[in-house]
Amino acid sequence: METTADAPLIVPDPTDPRLTRRVGGIDHTGAAVETSVTVERPLTLFLNGQEIVTMMTIGDYPEYLALGYLLNQNMLRADDEVTGVEHDEELDVVVVRTARATDYQEKLRKKTLTSGCAQGTAFGDLMERFERVRLPAAELRTSWLYRLTHAINTMPSLYLEAGAIHGCVLCREDRPLVYMEDVGRHNAVDKIAGYMFRHRVEPADKIFYTTGRLTSEMVIKTVQMGIPILVSRSGFTAWGVELARQAGLTLIGRARGRRFLALAGEQRIVFDLDPGFVEEESARHRRKGAQDSEP
Amino acid sequence: METTADAPLIVPDPTDPRLTRRVGGIDHTGAAVETSVTVERPLTLFLNGQEIVTMMTIGDYPEYLALGYLLNQNMLRADDEVTGVEHDEELDVVVVRTARATDYQEKLRKKTLTSGCAQGTAFGDLMERFERVRLPAAELRTSWLYRLTHAINTMPSLYLEAGAIHGCVLCREDRPLVYMEDVGRHNAVDKIAGYMFRHRVEPADKIFYTTGRLTSEMVIKTVQMGIPILVSRSGFTAWGVELARQAGLTLIGRARGRRFLALAGEQRIVFDLDPGFVEEESARHRRKGAQDSEP
Repeated sequence: METTADAPLIVPDPTDPRLTRRVGGIDHTGAAVETSVTVERPLTLFLNGQEIVTMMTIGDYPEYLALGYLLNQNMLRADDEVTGVEHDEELDVVVVRTARATDYQEKLRKKTLTSGCAQGTAFGDLMERFERVRLPAAELRTSWLYRLTHAINTMPSLYLEAGAIHGCVLCREDRPLVYMEDVGRHNAVDKIAGYMFRHRVEPADKIFYTTGRLTSEMVIKTVQMGIPILVSRSGFTAWGVELARQAGLTLIGRARGRRFLALAGEQRIVFDLDPGFVEEESARHRRKGAQDSEP
Repeated sequence: METTADAPLIVPDPTDPRLTRRVGGIDHTGAAVETSVTVERPLTLFLNGQEIVTMMTIGDYPEYLALGYLLNQNMLRADDEVTGVEHDEELDVVVVRTARATDYQEKLRKKTLTSGCAQGTAFGDLMERFERVRLPAAELRTSWLYRLTHAINTMPSLYLEAGAIHGCVLCREDRPLVYMEDVGRHNAVDKIAGYMFRHRVEPADKIFYTTGRLTSEMVIKTVQMGIPILVSRSGFTAWGVELARQAGLTLIGRARGRRFLALAGEQRIVFDLDPGFVEEESARHRRKGAQDSEP
């Protein structure tokens, strides 16, 4: 699916009427106001006839979300043959079918919650796979990083339209390729994982950007996707840093304007641009964290 | 437990060495730096000999977290007699014992993920209880709201120390009473629910403040706790608004400086202060959303 075009392949569509709703209320002066709020709807996921989970999602790209969820839960393997993905919009159901027979009853019983509020993951299993991953050599030029974060922050998005949403962006060099948003940041990550699986995207030369915190879970998912570089405008947790170091992942947080902090895999960073020439974030485009809601 | 003192009963302890860790890395100029990051550790919860879940938490107040989790998952009833809560710090285990025999194997099997990344809740069950709650009449004076948010934003916290953390505050009138933080915002809510259960705190005259978004799950938990007013500096989701209206919860979001937006239960708001006299947030104390990490 590698492209040479400059435009991203998938960007948020803040004008999609299904994704936001106008609601009325009052403001701090008592005046009646109308505002846009993000829509969340249930989506129930089946794998080969077995009900796996019901997720709350904004509802775009249900097929990618379903595939990515199953991959990140280790219920779908990278070499599995997917024979069908059916989405029933009226029933809010998505069914994934694989050539391999599956049975995750046992797995669904034993769940671990991970930090930053989680989806419940069979943990031993997941760590075992995590430890086997070897991330490739790669480079991250600071000139790419600055162009990337500027492009992401200024791109039209549901965040800018209605707030209360998370964003994840798959990038190469200085270009955003796939930009997904969702109420749960794990959904946004999973949609990208599903996209990469469906289109056989090579992870080795990619950069993963998230608006969310760099928790253990975010690090584990990035490593499982095989992407060597993870960037966020938010902060770190101690275990996230520890796992990133263990896996050799380049972990960059608090990336705002010209500033950032790298707490793991620093050797991949190439300082090819004097940060003195980078603009600080303008107030107009400053993201205040994906949880924040100011449009 | 009602208090007449002015000081909050529980505030974050950013100097507790177990809650943050100093780690080294490099900054945007390539210079070596050291920074504080939030610690997340596993805590496995048992209810009467049955393993329920493993949570990732910063680790303070494990007893409140355990009780609150069980309450919010409907595994503990408001009238249950808790015969013991034991925390084993070395094993990272907390055991809650009740006079009533419990068996939640079946319940653990059927999980629904809710938005904003969730803990997996038996959903039908939860909605049934939600629909039975009748929230009391109450008032929220805007002078209280402004004093509250100012007090919360300027109080020493792990957020200010290390970022990447969520906060929830139980308040009465213009005073914060119990301020809990955690990597997962549901943990912070659950710790407050556990505190209220343990100390038989009356919810009717309380205000609940959260740094997180006003999702369906946050609304459901506040309503279940019986608190009539929910305030956040972050934004709304459509379903959160819908559920708040259904339950008659006062829902206030985007509360920053003098501004806020009420999208449900507006009748409880008493405009007793001219917002023109309220200061905008100073840059020094501006919270950028709990996911953000700038210390």
